[in-house]
Amino acid sequence: MIDYDAFLSRSAQAMKESAIRKMGTLLAKGGDIVSFAPGYPAPEMFPWQEFQEITATLLSGTDGAVLQYGATRGYRPLLEAIVALMASRGAPTSLERLLVTTGSQQGLDLVARVLLDPDDVILVELPSYTGAIVAFRNLRARIVGVRQESDGVSLEHLDEVWEQQRAAGRRVRCLYVVPNFQNPTGLLIGLDKRQRLLEWAERRDVLIVEDDPYRDLYFEDSASEAEVRSMRADDASGRVIYLSSFSKTLAPGYRVAWIDAPPPLAAKLELAKQAADLCTGGLDQRVVYQAWKRGVLDRGLPLLRAHYQRKRDVMSAALRDAFGPELHWPEPRGGFFLWATLPAGLDADAMIPRAIAHGVAYVAGEAFFVNGDGARYLRLSFSGPSEERIREGVRRLAETVRAERAAAPAAG
Amino acid sequence: MIDYDAFLSRSAQAMKESAIRKMGTLLAKGGDIVSFAPGYPAPEMFPWQEFQEITATLLSGTDGAVLQYGATRGYRPLLEAIVALMASRGAPTSLERLLVTTGSQQGLDLVARVLLDPDDVILVELPSYTGAIVAFRNLRARIVGVRQESDGVSLEHLDEVWEQQRAAGRRVRCLYVVPNFQNPTGLLIGLDKRQRLLEWAERRDVLIVEDDPYRDLYFEDSASEAEVRSMRADDASGRVIYLSSFSKTLAPGYRVAWIDAPPPLAAKLELAKQAADLCTGGLDQRVVYQAWKRGVLDRGLPLLRAHYQRKRDVMSAALRDAFGPELHWPEPRGGFFLWATLPAGLDADAMIPRAIAHGVAYVAGEAFFVNGDGARYLRLSFSGPSEERIREGVRRLAETVRAERAAAPAAG
Repeated sequence: MIDYDAFLSRSAQAMKESAIRKMGTLLAKGGDIVSFAPGYPAPEMFPWQEFQEITATLLSGTDGAVLQYGATRGYRPLLEAIVALMASRGAPTSLERLLVTTGSQQGLDLVARVLLDPDDVILVELPSYTGAIVAFRNLRARIVGVRQESDGVSLEHLDEVWEQQRAAGRRVRCLYVVPNFQNPTGLLIGLDKRQRLLEWAERRDVLIVEDDPYRDLYFEDSASEAEVRSMRADDASGRVIYLSSFSKTLAPGYRVAWIDAPPPLAAKLELAKQAADLCTGGLDQRVVYQAWKRGVLDRGLPLLRAHYQRKRDVMSAALRDAFGPELHWPEPRGGFFLWATLPAGLDADAMIPRAIAHGVAYVAGEAFFVNGDGARYLRLSFSGPSEERIREGVRRLAETVRAERAAAPAAG
Repeated sequence: MIDYDAFLSRSAQAMKESAIRKMGTLLAKGGDIVSFAPGYPAPEMFPWQEFQEITATLLSGTDGAVLQYGATRGYRPLLEAIVALMASRGAPTSLERLLVTTGSQQGLDLVARVLLDPDDVILVELPSYTGAIVAFRNLRARIVGVRQESDGVSLEHLDEVWEQQRAAGRRVRCLYVVPNFQNPTGLLIGLDKRQRLLEWAERRDVLIVEDDPYRDLYFEDSASEAEVRSMRADDASGRVIYLSSFSKTLAPGYRVAWIDAPPPLAAKLELAKQAADLCTGGLDQRVVYQAWKRGVLDRGLPLLRAHYQRKRDVMSAALRDAFGPELHWPEPRGGFFLWATLPAGLDADAMIPRAIAHGVAYVAGEAFFVNGDGARYLRLSFSGPSEERIREGVRRLAETVRAERAAAPAAG
């Protein structure tokens, strides 16, 4: 027998299945389960008809390049569309700053590979997006958490952590933030705080990695275009590496996202991507470009906002009905996620088997904390299931919690 | 001004543009250039009509999963198709050994990340595929070359290199080989040598990374199905990590390839892929699956073999006509590449500007050698251009060489 462990890199030795993907595997095993676990967009909102028309034209065979290898930077017309899109977000850019990525997960991975050596310090929010945490962890970086307040990362704690790292002889390279409708909390960083984060990064010579997949999905009853303005838009000195994606606004099955970064970093990210997958799929990029060009993207956004806002309403109302004051959460003003705190004494991770037995799934909070916290949190995605399934899932969740407390009455 | 260099990882500091992609950038700048540089499949051979039909059905909107995030391992029916495909290659496998990758380049990158730490030794053929070299280099591995003979890697030199590394206190982790119609030489490893490589790997406790994208593209006038039998097919002990792809047989625009590896390694490769891009595009995987299921792939292979064989004939004949005995090469028995040796005194890399001026492009040999050799080699891809363009390109190449010698008459 070959001892494969003896062949693993140090990075591979430390790799563990992410909680979200593990949950996916669990769910794939079937049964009637309402899943609030994965942050899936609603497939009924994908513009199927338009995709069908666009693809039929692209696959006519008149342009061989459609299914050929392509430039690592991306399909030129799509890059130009992204320039226009960035301008519409108040962040004018240029081709030399842009790189198309195979989803934003690849973007995060490339950023990690270009910026992080083992033991380099990167700061993340407490809690933060697991996919980013895993990408940073695979580089064997030192990932340090910064507390969040209701308007985002605590500036006080941020500088405290920075000082601690410096005192320990370590340099903080980057701060990773999801400013809009964060995964998992659904929170926004306040506009004033964004400015102060930029100033802090300047003062401390730290780069900001701004991951912004949800910005277009603000809920018009409680958030606005002005409130999702990126830090990148006000980045005068080139501190910000900005990531965004078409996965949440068109469809994730097309693996198309982008990075906007200062040109010297964009050049390195391109080289990293060459070795990572040569290029993002040519057909995928052209479909996304055509969807942008034909206005499918722009026409869709108000519908998506309304759709997810309604689902948020349904989940919020159902949770209030089922739990009363026992469960609480910050009301999401956009995005896909509701971040709920369980009553004291309950542990979200420990409760998963019971939840599955009751036919409901979520992601337990611990996965999002790099410091081991999070036992009482649930991330509930309202984006994927239908309204009826959301109601049913919340009923099952309430049963789960009741049963969990009954099984351990002392804990309540 | 921010000093971005101060933020780069050691890996990023060392990243350089690959010769092939650099050539691509150069060519994208336009002008009438016959490019023998990139290893592009012939787009006129892509089954456009079938892709159009398949995609129209998939995009009907009846199955939301088509454009949703999917399992990291891959789309289950496609994985099952790959099981059947591996069996037809004499290498029965199972789902727990398989992982769909976003092109084989991603496969190489994942293998590198799972197996290699900085300074770990991986052996490659002299010359070898640049994309693999770059992936290994990005992990800061120690890449050591092994000489090739006409039937593949020299067993004598292989063991000599192994002994040298051991004497230097280093363990050789892996041997990377492209056994069929190697990129760049077009050579096959002989069947007997494949057996002996497996025995050697067993004796020296080394893993074999077998990269096999071209095996279906043997030319029936000079090679056979029997001769492309993979080492994986005869790997009794689990030494071989096998990579293959649909990019050369269907289309590279669908970024769909796979890894077959011993289950403990496949599990780690899956975790590495989670962080690298979550999943390969769901639509791409379904198109490839349907193309396999409907027999598009199987019906296409004989046509592709004939097509590329004819192009090989055209290039060979044109080169003989234009150069006589001055240029020589091993006649490709499959694949995309012809590996030509320039007359003494000429340098393929130095000649590139003149070639571009004459309207022809190739990849200079050095890019494929990890030891700095290769100055007299050209990699000429006959796969992409039409027959007429191949003839024209060879004429231009002959003019280039004449002009180059005239400019430096002493060198001839």
